[in-house]
Amino acid sequence: MHKKIITISREFGSGGRTIGKMAAEELGISCYDRELIERVAEKTGFAAEYVREQGEDVPARNLFAYVSAGRGMDGLSPEDYLWAAQSKVIWELAEKEPCVIVGRCADYVLRNRTDCLNVFIHASMEKRAERIVRLYGERDTSPMKRLREKDKRRKVNYKYYTDREWGMARNYHITLDSGELGQERCVQILTDLYKTEYV
Amino acid sequence: MHKKIITISREFGSGGRTIGKMAAEELGISCYDRELIERVAEKTGFAAEYVREQGEDVPARNLFAYVSAGRGMDGLSPEDYLWAAQSKVIWELAEKEPCVIVGRCADYVLRNRTDCLNVFIHASMEKRAERIVRLYGERDTSPMKRLREKDKRRKVNYKYYTDREWGMARNYHITLDSGELGQERCVQILTDLYKTEYV
Repeated sequence: MHKKIITISREFGSGGRTIGKMAAEELGISCYDRELIERVAEKTGFAAEYVREQGEDVPARNLFAYVSAGRGMDGLSPEDYLWAAQSKVIWELAEKEPCVIVGRCADYVLRNRTDCLNVFIHASMEKRAERIVRLYGERDTSPMKRLREKDKRRKVNYKYYTDREWGMARNYHITLDSGELGQERCVQILTDLYKTEYV
Repeated sequence: MHKKIITISREFGSGGRTIGKMAAEELGISCYDRELIERVAEKTGFAAEYVREQGEDVPARNLFAYVSAGRGMDGLSPEDYLWAAQSKVIWELAEKEPCVIVGRCADYVLRNRTDCLNVFIHASMEKRAERIVRLYGERDTSPMKRLREKDKRRKVNYKYYTDREWGMARNYHITLDSGELGQERCVQILTDLYKTEYV
């Protein structure tokens, strides 16, 4: 079965987005990450920054309230509306052309398609900490704390919308430790898989 | 960093053992699975059948009692003794020669070595059910129930001895869906990784 779409889920700081972009470039197909955010922003009227922040991570404050608030009892919350609009954009992109889609639970959103290669990229806390400081600079909060918070927000968001455990191997066709294997090698494995009729 | 050891953790029925054997053959190194069981049996005096059954899955009955019994309060339980002996055999094998080690939490037992490529093989329930019926025949219990029970026993055992979640991507350098990718392709990815200085 030939795959047409690659979905990349990734831990913050693991380089998953870069791996997705490199793979798309190598394969000569589009990579949707920022572009996806912009499309969703256009469709919904939300600011791109809001889409970027809320589209895959629950709000940093009030994590518990978010999950337990019984949202949707009296209509869609802004987050639910964003989720629905975002899912629609992901479906449309997948329908339109072969592409790489980074983040935003695309593995789950496209779960009924059989032409997706679902990938999860992760790395050790140490490797990710080193990477986010190198890329985004120092902050008041320690890199370890930034990672733990981001992991938690992404995990809760994934669980809330998909009822799956984030980062469980069984949700993906392949998961890769980018810190250990290196970005280039991850790209090579994914592009090789994509190019081959592998079953 | 060149890897010397491949540890393969796998869901029951995913073909992980076969993939390990095929990879070892391709690489010209030993694969320890049955041989490991026999060595542990020899060292401990336990029957090979007991080692096979208890060495990585908790007893089928009394799952709750097993976890909550506060074992070890008055000495090692037989399972703890088996765990210690089995871990020792795994260390010795890893020290002795490049090899593939299947199951038995080898990823965790060897966690302080930097020359292990830790792999997890899984597949969908449907693919695994089809496979266990083909290989081991029909039983009174449905294949789905057999899988669920085995998954649970292995998961509890892994959690008990390693305090990690079984099947979480972050515990492995690479995880592969053998049902989707096919055994040959899994073998190829692993042997390619093993042969290359990849970071």
